[in-house]
Amino acid sequence: MKPVFDYFFYPQSICIVGASSKPKSLGYELTKSVQLYGYTGKLLLVNPKAEEILGYKCYQTINDVDISIDLAIVMVPKQFVEDSIKVLLNKNVKAIILITAGFKETGEAGAEAERRILSLIKNSDARMVGPNCMGIINTLPSVKMNATFVAEQPREGRMAFCSQSGAIGAAVLNSLRETDIRFGQFISVGNKADVNENDLLEYWQNNNDVGVITFYLESFVDGEKFIKYFIEGKINKPVIVLKGGRTSSGMKAASSHTGALGSSDKVVDAVLHQFGIIRTDDLNDMFNTAKGFEEFPIPQGNRIAVVTNAGGPAILTVDSLEKNNLTLAELNEETKKKLREIVHPEGSVNNPVDLLPGGTAEQFKTVNEILVQDKNVDVIISVFVEPIMVKALPVIEGINEIIADKPIFQVVMPLPEFWDEYRRESKTRKPLFRFAEDPAVVIKNMILHSKKKDEKRLSRQSVQIKINLNDYANKFLPPEIVGELVDYYLLPRVREKIFSYEEMLEENFVFPIVLKAVGEKIVHKSDLKGVVLNIKTKDELIYQADEMRKTFSQKNIELKSFLIQPFLTTRFELLVGAFRDSSFGPMIMFGLGGKYVEYLDDTVMRSAYLCEKDIDEMINSTKIGKIIQGVRGEVPADIKSIKDSIRNLAQMMLNHPEIKEVDLNPLLVTNENKIFAVDVRIKC
Amino acid sequence: MKPVFDYFFYPQSICIVGASSKPKSLGYELTKSVQLYGYTGKLLLVNPKAEEILGYKCYQTINDVDISIDLAIVMVPKQFVEDSIKVLLNKNVKAIILITAGFKETGEAGAEAERRILSLIKNSDARMVGPNCMGIINTLPSVKMNATFVAEQPREGRMAFCSQSGAIGAAVLNSLRETDIRFGQFISVGNKADVNENDLLEYWQNNNDVGVITFYLESFVDGEKFIKYFIEGKINKPVIVLKGGRTSSGMKAASSHTGALGSSDKVVDAVLHQFGIIRTDDLNDMFNTAKGFEEFPIPQGNRIAVVTNAGGPAILTVDSLEKNNLTLAELNEETKKKLREIVHPEGSVNNPVDLLPGGTAEQFKTVNEILVQDKNVDVIISVFVEPIMVKALPVIEGINEIIADKPIFQVVMPLPEFWDEYRRESKTRKPLFRFAEDPAVVIKNMILHSKKKDEKRLSRQSVQIKINLNDYANKFLPPEIVGELVDYYLLPRVREKIFSYEEMLEENFVFPIVLKAVGEKIVHKSDLKGVVLNIKTKDELIYQADEMRKTFSQKNIELKSFLIQPFLTTRFELLVGAFRDSSFGPMIMFGLGGKYVEYLDDTVMRSAYLCEKDIDEMINSTKIGKIIQGVRGEVPADIKSIKDSIRNLAQMMLNHPEIKEVDLNPLLVTNENKIFAVDVRIKC
Repeated sequence: MKPVFDYFFYPQSICIVGASSKPKSLGYELTKSVQLYGYTGKLLLVNPKAEEILGYKCYQTINDVDISIDLAIVMVPKQFVEDSIKVLLNKNVKAIILITAGFKETGEAGAEAERRILSLIKNSDARMVGPNCMGIINTLPSVKMNATFVAEQPREGRMAFCSQSGAIGAAVLNSLRETDIRFGQFISVGNKADVNENDLLEYWQNNNDVGVITFYLESFVDGEKFIKYFIEGKINKPVIVLKGGRTSSGMKAASSHTGALGSSDKVVDAVLHQFGIIRTDDLNDMFNTAKGFEEFPIPQGNRIAVVTNAGGPAILTVDSLEKNNLTLAELNEETKKKLREIVHPEGSVNNPVDLLPGGTAEQFKTVNEILVQDKNVDVIISVFVEPIMVKALPVIEGINEIIADKPIFQVVMPLPEFWDEYRRESKTRKPLFRFAEDPAVVIKNMILHSKKKDEKRLSRQSVQIKINLNDYANKFLPPEIVGELVDYYLLPRVREKIFSYEEMLEENFVFPIVLKAVGEKIVHKSDLKGVVLNIKTKDELIYQADEMRKTFSQKNIELKSFLIQPFLTTRFELLVGAFRDSSFGPMIMFGLGGKYVEYLDDTVMRSAYLCEKDIDEMINSTKIGKIIQGVRGEVPADIKSIKDSIRNLAQMMLNHPEIKEVDLNPLLVTNENKIFAVDVRIKC
Repeated sequence: MKPVFDYFFYPQSICIVGASSKPKSLGYELTKSVQLYGYTGKLLLVNPKAEEILGYKCYQTINDVDISIDLAIVMVPKQFVEDSIKVLLNKNVKAIILITAGFKETGEAGAEAERRILSLIKNSDARMVGPNCMGIINTLPSVKMNATFVAEQPREGRMAFCSQSGAIGAAVLNSLRETDIRFGQFISVGNKADVNENDLLEYWQNNNDVGVITFYLESFVDGEKFIKYFIEGKINKPVIVLKGGRTSSGMKAASSHTGALGSSDKVVDAVLHQFGIIRTDDLNDMFNTAKGFEEFPIPQGNRIAVVTNAGGPAILTVDSLEKNNLTLAELNEETKKKLREIVHPEGSVNNPVDLLPGGTAEQFKTVNEILVQDKNVDVIISVFVEPIMVKALPVIEGINEIIADKPIFQVVMPLPEFWDEYRRESKTRKPLFRFAEDPAVVIKNMILHSKKKDEKRLSRQSVQIKINLNDYANKFLPPEIVGELVDYYLLPRVREKIFSYEEMLEENFVFPIVLKAVGEKIVHKSDLKGVVLNIKTKDELIYQADEMRKTFSQKNIELKSFLIQPFLTTRFELLVGAFRDSSFGPMIMFGLGGKYVEYLDDTVMRSAYLCEKDIDEMINSTKIGKIIQGVRGEVPADIKSIKDSIRNLAQMMLNHPEIKEVDLNPLLVTNENKIFAVDVRIKC
């Protein structure tokens, strides 16, 4: 049996329910698009009033259709949607696109109608795209389907694009003549009532006509499921996401628009990066990156050679390299020697290589060929500003023709007539960049994708002790259970013990010690004056304990007992923490701790499905992480123990889905470079 | 007498020395550009071989020219340049543009030739633009001069553009048909041997045909002079700078390209921002911002209303607001009431206002008019994605016609035919934006320019004490002189005293104290183990002093004497420092201090020509600056004293040009919120 999504993208028949004979109506324009683009299958139209539309015979009702329907596109007024869907399901249609709007995005009544439709779908073996969407495209010559309102003629390609916003999808389609974007498949998913990004991710990974997967999303329906495809190594195609609703007010706009609830943007950023999923800031970067994957080899490193005939644009290119963590390659001496024979003596054979405005097509080609041979070069960016005496087309074509295992990205700033000429006359029609800054982002993104992905990652394990966390929903765990968890997960806790006031009087301590108040309502101990550090004698201890009892009784907070810890001299205060994101699940944090943690803002987060490289990256990407590894000739802290804490806490989050938040703040590094979690708080 | 730059931009005659009859040569193409664009003055050509070029009579030599020359454009081969310039100066020509390349940018021989030419110019009352440049434009109908190689027909405008790179200039001119950029004046300044950005800044400020000043620069010839125009209130037009060579390797590329030496990019960023000079990252933002100033009122605040007919693009717009420090306006209840009468019930009357795809031209116009009336709204961004049933042109034109004291920026994502139609049929032809993210940057930039500029600023003052710093070039000042400076500038120093070993034995101290080693080569005291904190008794003091003597004698470093300070308990370690930038002059820094200062990277810098707002901004723009103002309910530090330290140190830098660096690190905030400079180092 063929996969259900093949009915969407490779239908042998399409039935447009709600086709219209009225020009400028959606039902007419979509039908016209299908016709104009030359759909190879059977087009079936349903309209109760028209006999014929655009030369196609119309059926009065769906039931009148006497040919098997692969894909139904429903665009009837919303009051007729439910009935139409029922009839389609009765006819055993597997693929339905519901274009009609007016559902969840409009409020509670619409949401209720959407739920009713969804339950019809869930009780069938059909899948539904939408509602509130704008159609589907497959450019493959054997299909030739443009079932959208946009009557453009997209060129064939191997990129797949899913847009949560119909308008963004339409804007992209309307820009094709200028942007030269090429599609394989496009789908607008609207409210994502049934089919969502997770379905498409899985489908496109397994579809041989697709090479690069791109998404415009305003929400992740189930972020943890999305990343699990990557965690489990099921995805190896490049995936590029433009996530709208980056800022908190953007997210508000997103929510009111499709009723979607976005995850915190920092989580999205961290998680996508962790699993080599490319995130871009705008459509231009997204499609440039997609073109990069489609038409160029993947860069093997970040050392860039720049060739140019003009200094200024080359400078802008170089500026863009460092911004994207790329470096200017140090050219081989051999390379420079060869270049000297070609480059004008007043030009430059250092990187950037400058051919001066007189540089010819032949020189450009040869210089690029020489640079391809240089082992110190991973990528070439060739920047050509068209002067009067050298025509652009032969320069560009000459370089396009070079066959190499390294990418050569061309930036061209031509005379105004060039673009039409290139579209008309170029044999290769490889993507060109218009701005000196454009290739750097593409290179950075391609390198991110090529990061090794088959690292061993943490996963949920069965727990060998009995800890029942069900009773603590929305509560902090009591010290005993915290203690059990801390011991089980080998978190480096301070040797500490709880005493009643009387027991404390009896005990012999090794001073100096720390005294802390314990009680159900005593959470932020410091703020409540429930902590005294560096107590040096028994007399001082008794005095401080008495003071504490007074303070708490004045505040009417129950002081149940006292916690005694050794007093540690602090070299650094770190933070290791965890929380459960509503979409992406368990997350782990590391960074600079202490009481100013929010203000100093030197923390990093990752999904708790960690690999060892992630842990290294967490430490290296914070300022404090660099400092504790030893700067200014200092002795490094015990990095192994810190990594263990991060890893073990992540494991705790994976094993206990009941736990919502854990805070090891501070995780102390002492003057002796010992690591201690001083205060552990766990919330369910 | 008319200003010399009027000879450049408003010449009544142009003499092209080196005009050529050979198509595709620069000397031919420039002549043709002048002719095609319809220059209104006299065009005089000099060529020893041709009788006539493009219908103009040729003079054999410059001396044969029998008409007075306002502007000479020299493009002869470089070996003839010097002679040509001599002859022109003899003929008393005031304005020379030297197009020919092959000077400083090619090495020492070229630099020497350039210096010879410059000295000819300096000994005359003429000014020279170039060498190594590509021409000049004035679009004013009474001038109509396009003396560049680019035979485009730029439309008239009030923007002036100076490009240090000829290629960037050419690329911009070649893009005019697509970008709709309009110029008043354009000049390519090449190597800037004589005329540079400072001359043009001053000239354009005083030129009534210019409304907005833009620069593409790779270096500032004299950054301190550039900013002094602003400090002295001489510039009130918007100035926009795109500075190439942002990253250190970009700067290297810039140096090899025009022999320019760039300032550290952080300095450029800080200084431009401080004086309300707009810096953009790319040409697109630069010219979008210029269009903003030219065609729209200046925003009175940062509260933005967004109108749209499509959710997705509106989300991208909202995302771009927060990134640029703008906020979504809270619409008035009155406004929402009025909007409800127009907006479809399934749309939204909250910000972003969503008219849904059916929103008509009339609705768009009325909604924009209503939002203009709302006192909570400073700027409107109207985003229109062209659906099938509503044509874009009437929507866009309707909004363009609104007369308002607030800017309405329009983003349009139209059907492909729209742009030609707009250029052909629009009466207003106001700038439109193609990407949802574009207006936010423009708004941010316009707001930066409108910042109050007439604040009182620090300036150089005469010094009332005699301190001779001439003997200390490249040296650290000795403690006595540091002491004098610190006292004179009221820097909050710790009461400290220097003792010989023997004196120390005699003295009675109030403990606890700090002991520090003093010696000519002892600069980074902590690293050399020359600091002991918290000494509590005389015995401990003697023991530590003895240890220190041993350590330094082992290291063979002379320990001259001992510095004793009271031991202070530290709440925060700040940094206040200063340095002299090679281009922009005295700079002042503030931020998080202590030994990890470079790693924690929480510092901010400004030119020492400070106003009070700058000082506030310095404190507020660092993390530590926010913390010391009191977070988590804590008592604020003594902010007044900290500001005094910043201000007084800036004054010291302004008064003593000999001082190259000053470091107050740490500037301690004690547990009692007292401020103390513990270690003051000054280098000349």
